Amino acid sequence: MDPRVSFITLAVPDLEAARRFYVDGLGWEAAMFVPDEVLMIQVGDRLVLSFWVEAEFEAEVGEIRRGPGLAPITLAHNLPEHDDVDRVLEDARRAGASHVEAAEDREWGGYTGYFADPAGYRWEVAWNPGPIGQTVLP
Amino acid sequence: MDPRVSFITLAVPDLEAARRFYVDGLGWEAAMFVPDEVLMIQVGDRLVLSFWVEAEFEAEVGEIRRGPGLAPITLAHNLPEHDDVDRVLEDARRAGASHVEAAEDREWGGYTGYFADPAGYRWEVAWNPGPIGQTVLP
Repeated sequence: MDPRVSFITLAVPDLEAARRFYVDGLGWEAAMFVPDEVLMIQVGDRLVLSFWVEAEFEAEVGEIRRGPGLAPITLAHNLPEHDDVDRVLEDARRAGASHVEAAEDREWGGYTGYFADPAGYRWEVAWNPGPIGQTVLP
Repeated sequence: MDPRVSFITLAVPDLEAARRFYVDGLGWEAAMFVPDEVLMIQVGDRLVLSFWVEAEFEAEVGEIRRGPGLAPITLAHNLPEHDDVDRVLEDARRAGASHVEAAEDREWGGYTGYFADPAGYRWEVAWNPGPIGQTVLP
């Protein structure tokens, strides 16, 4: 098995809220949209981000953890310049992000902030000037 | 904000168990490894999969949901041929996957199965002959 991720699938309680945020709000193109079922968005050359309604996710994958607290995952959107970070967090706020945490300088040398999508999934908006940060830039 | 995911970060309770599975077991190369802190693996041209110890994840991002059930996410590894799926699930089993679910034909025309990593994160191993499945192949 070679090291390769093709799809990231996130279970969501409200698919229409995800569509409004990502498609209407951020302006991302739906590669596939089936109401009350699935929304897929191309987020890399060979990478698709998929939002799947919780009931169908659970029927195939298994029951998900409920209760307070965050999902144990973040998705990062990296940017080439320090000052891009505040601008993109503002884009997310305007698109309807449910929660935005202002960026901070991090001890490892980067500058990052977070926003939440309608299901509460955290996105990190990051400037990472280190070698590994460079490998992910477009 | 353009549609782009640069890092996928998963909080893990036991980073050494993740390292044993992904690096020793599957043979994936660590792009960065700091014991008791973080393991990063390149999983696409501009994509890094990062395992971050729970305590540090929670200190920066927020408290995570606890209790029974699965994390509400899967990562998919797509393959060009139907018969590749069983072979890769077997690779994962040999690497120490904590749970393997045999592949099934799906109503949408694909053939997919699942395995779990040491933290319980589900990977889908998939053959998807549809148009969107073709966009993610290497």
